[in-house]
Parts: sequence; C-alpha cells; structure tokens
Amino acid sequence: MSAQKFAIAVHGGAGVLDSKKLSFDRQVAYRSGIREALESGHKILESGGSAIDAVEAAVRTLEDNPLFNAGRGAVLASDGRHYHDAAIMDGKDLSAGAVAGVQRVRNPIILAREVMRGGSAILLAGEHADRFAEQVGVELVENTYFTTEHRMEQLRAAIASGDVILDHNDPYRGKKGTVGAVALDRTGHVAAATSTGGMTNKHPGRVGDSPLIGSGTYAADDACAISCTGKGEQFIRHHVAGTVASIIRYAGRSLHSAAELAMKELPPKVGGFIGISPEGEIIMPFNSRGMIRGWLQSGREFIGIGREDKSS
Amino acid sequence: MSAQKFAIAVHGGAGVLDSKKLSFDRQVAYRSGIREALESGHKILESGGSAIDAVEAAVRTLEDNPLFNAGRGAVLASDGRHYHDAAIMDGKDLSAGAVAGVQRVRNPIILAREVMRGGSAILLAGEHADRFAEQVGVELVENTYFTTEHRMEQLRAAIASGDVILDHNDPYRGKKGTVGAVALDRTGHVAAATSTGGMTNKHPGRVGDSPLIGSGTYAADDACAISCTGKGEQFIRHHVAGTVASIIRYAGRSLHSAAELAMKELPPKVGGFIGISPEGEIIMPFNSRGMIRGWLQSGREFIGIGREDKSS
Repeated sequence: MSAQKFAIAVHGGAGVLDSKKLSFDRQVAYRSGIREALESGHKILESGGSAIDAVEAAVRTLEDNPLFNAGRGAVLASDGRHYHDAAIMDGKDLSAGAVAGVQRVRNPIILAREVMRGGSAILLAGEHADRFAEQVGVELVENTYFTTEHRMEQLRAAIASGDVILDHNDPYRGKKGTVGAVALDRTGHVAAATSTGGMTNKHPGRVGDSPLIGSGTYAADDACAISCTGKGEQFIRHHVAGTVASIIRYAGRSLHSAAELAMKELPPKVGGFIGISPEGEIIMPFNSRGMIRGWLQSGREFIGIGREDKSS
Repeated sequence: MSAQKFAIAVHGGAGVLDSKKLSFDRQVAYRSGIREALESGHKILESGGSAIDAVEAAVRTLEDNPLFNAGRGAVLASDGRHYHDAAIMDGKDLSAGAVAGVQRVRNPIILAREVMRGGSAILLAGEHADRFAEQVGVELVENTYFTTEHRMEQLRAAIASGDVILDHNDPYRGKKGTVGAVALDRTGHVAAATSTGGMTNKHPGRVGDSPLIGSGTYAADDACAISCTGKGEQFIRHHVAGTVASIIRYAGRSLHSAAELAMKELPPKVGGFIGISPEGEIIMPFNSRGMIRGWLQSGREFIGIGREDKSS
C-alpha cells in the first residue's frame, strides 16, 4: 500500500433514478452537487488531512445542498417535521458517533462527530441529541430551515395516497436521496459518514440504517469503509456495511468480491452503497435503477447517476 | 438436523459477577430468575410454539423480575428516569422490531414485537415509540413503576462519583444486567430477543447495542441467533451479533468457532453473548468475570454465573 495514495467517494442516494428521464438541468445540478462534495473532501486529503475530516466535510457540503435528502432539503415525516439521522466512523480506531431523530441541528453530521468526540455514547437519539447539540455549541436552526417547497408537495401527495416513500422512489417528482462519503487518507486510514432525512411521510421516531454502525455506516482500517443508501430496513436486517467488512476479514475476499456477496443477500431494487479499501479500491454497487455517485482519486474523477454511467 | 430438536438459552447480564463474592441468597435469586425465564420459553417450544414466541416470553419474564436491569428494576439515567431499549428478530424471515428510549411501556420487548408486526419500521426511538405503544394498545405504566430503592441508591452513588456505570460493573452494590434469550423451535427456526435499561447515570437518549439489529441482537436461520450483554458501545463498534452470523455464512465456521473469533475482536472485560445454531448448538462466551446465563434442552438444564460454572 502506498502511503501517498488517497481517495474519496460520495453518494447522493439510490432509487429509480434514470438519467434518460431526468431533465438535463437536473442532471447538471446533481453532478455539480456531487463534484462540490468530492472536492471539499479531496482538498482536505490532498493537504494531508484525515479521512474522518474529509468524509465529514463532504457530507456537510451535501447536507447544505437542498437537492439532497439530508440537512436542508430533507424530506418531511408524517407530522410535517424533519427528523435527521447521521453517523460517522473512523477506521483508525473504530471510534464512531451517530444521532437519530434530531430536529434542530443544521448539520447532523457535525453533531455525530461531536458524539464521537465525546467518547462515551456512540448513538444519541431524539430530543436528547438536540439538547446535546446545545451543550456542545453545534449550530442550531428552526426546523423550518430544512423545508423546501418541493418537500411540502411531496408530503401532501404521500399523505393523500397513504404511502411512506423512500425519497429516491418518489413517484411524484424529484429524485433525491440520503448522502454519504467514504475516504482513504495519505496515512492509510479509512472513514465513512452518512446523513439522511429518512423517508417522506415516515413515522416520527423511525430510525433507518444510516445512523446504525454496521448497518448503513462502517469503517475499519483492516477491512474497508462503507456508506449505504436505499430502503433502510433492508440494510438493517442484512447489516450490510458490517457484513462487507466481515467477509473481507474472515473470508479473505477483496472489497469488490465482498461487496458482490453482500449485494446478493439483498432483495432486488433496494439501493446500494459506496466502499473504499485501505488499498484505495473503490466500489459503488447498487441494485436500484440508479445511484447518484462519484469518486475522485489521483487526478481522475467519475460522476454517475444511472447504470449506463460506467466508472471504468 | 432433527426437526424435533428444540432449545432455549437466556442471559441476565455480564460483568464483574463473581459467584464466590455473591451472597448465597442472591445467587439463589438469580438462578431462580433464570430458571423461570427458561421455563417460560421452553413450555412454548415443547408444545410446538415458535422460537420468536419463546424468546419474547423468556425476556418478558426477566423484564418483570426486579432483579435484572430490564423492565421493572431497570437502572436510572442521569435525569432520574428510566429509558428502555429492546429488540426482537425472527430467523425465519429476518423480520425484526426494536425500540429505544421508551419510558412508559411495561414490557419493552412486547412493544418491539409490535414494531416487528407493523412490518414497516424496524427501529422506533423516543417518545414516538411510547406513542406507538398507546396506538397499538401495549400496556403502559408510570415511569416510577420501574424504580426500585436499589436503583435510586445506585444513581445517587454514581452521580456523587460522576461515573456512568454498566450495571454489571456496579462497584456500589448489586450485580444485575441486560437480559436476552435465543431459541430454536421444532420447525428449525431460530430467534433472538434482548432488553435493557442501559447504564446507570447514562445520558438520556443514549442508545446501546441491545436494540440494534446486528450489534446486540441478530437471528437468521442460515446462521444463528445471538443476544449480547456488556459494554454496549463495544458491541456496536464490532457489530458482534452480525459478525458471528457473517463468519458462519461466509467463512463456513461453526457457531462455536465463529463465536471465538468474534470474541477475539473485543477488548478485555466488556461482556459476552449467548447464541444458538439451527442444529441446536448453544454457546455462551464472555470475557467479563461472569455472565448470568442458562440453557434448557432435551431435559438437560444448565444455569451459571461465574467462570467456575461449567456448562458441560
């Protein structure tokens, strides 16, 4: 392994994305959002920063972008409010932090990082997580800060039809999703981060896979870093991120091969994940129609949405 | 595999338990609590009932027993209230339900089962989970129902010293803990359930490993059923329950061998778990001083507390 090698990959959600059906303007906007996130993380890695700082920066950039279902632009739960879940994990020492159901934190990934820094709990849930944000001085906003007109329409349509909708499978309009990042830094450490607003019209209090270490998010230097997106309950049930790491560790497979095996466990059309190995191998498998995704490594960049976008 | 074979195992927490130092009366009380739980599950299995019903019944019995840190007798968080976490999973179809931070549900494991029955979310957290309990008609109690004089003393001592205390490592008095059960039924299905009050003086909102599928609780017919107990954050970081299943699935190991490998990942003195395979193999490894545990199978019974209690 070269100690100089570094790389970052991000995703912006998986679902029925079909670049043929997406308007040109919308595709450009997604690609531009992904590029911005990749560059925010890459800049840190290039200057010798850590993988954990890079994934935090990349996810923060996507949280601030109203196009994606995380932070500003997040979907609305059935009670018309936003509940955010996020997790971050450092492969160097398996330290991790996560929050579930936070309502007032501008960047849930920053709060997850603060929980990690706290060093005692890994996962804080509900109003107590918001209160912890107050204590540690993480930026708070009104819950309405997260709301966009588009999300209001989505919720109205979902309530009218009685559906709970994975953002990326929204039949109404808009194809946006959970966000995540994985990175490898110059010192050979990997890290992963994931952030989401969950599903439109979800039951408040429902926690998806994103903030659950080993389900939607995982990082270990002896295996890989993974961030998932899709139908959360399937990723919990199959503890996907942890399974990929366990296959590498105990069955001696490569990241690529482990990812294939883990994907085979999943029902069809549920989503996908991004992963990076300590050797710099990047994988981005999905069984949904599309996954907004990209990577940046050694001066080469890939950004794709549908299946027809090939990374190599 | 014999379709007639069935078995159940339960635990009542791991920690610095040392049967030499426990009073005779206390040992008798623990053993009697474990026996009662084993029998409540075994009765169901014997009459052809399902593994999932058996683990629910066994955990419910332990929740009602004030000796253990789950349901009545649960520890107090730093704000002087009880917050309960529980999870249940059916190996037959990987269906699962879990709740975190519930305050008013007499038997958190019954609510977890209701979440599983709901079939949409797997994990509900916080006050929303209590509200869901109201909707589905699960028995509610005042938060003070869970309080025992012993837990009040524990919290006062912990606050005085500034410690957050894993129940089983309580230096003050009492050695009680998280509860869990795994079972195999006559039709070859396995299931797991776990319930806990968490740690004395914990930050309200802190979610441990117990309600996290793949961390503290897991069941899959092609692998095993697992319920963990100990320092929750370590079991999250190493996604222990899911790791054991992955090692069986992808490295072709037996439950016994997979459990050994998973235990090796853990730092010393953090706890242990119970597990059962679809072939009826039962394991109960721990690296703490003791783990309150027992199994009942084919007319044979084992109940142990410290290392000196050998199950075979």
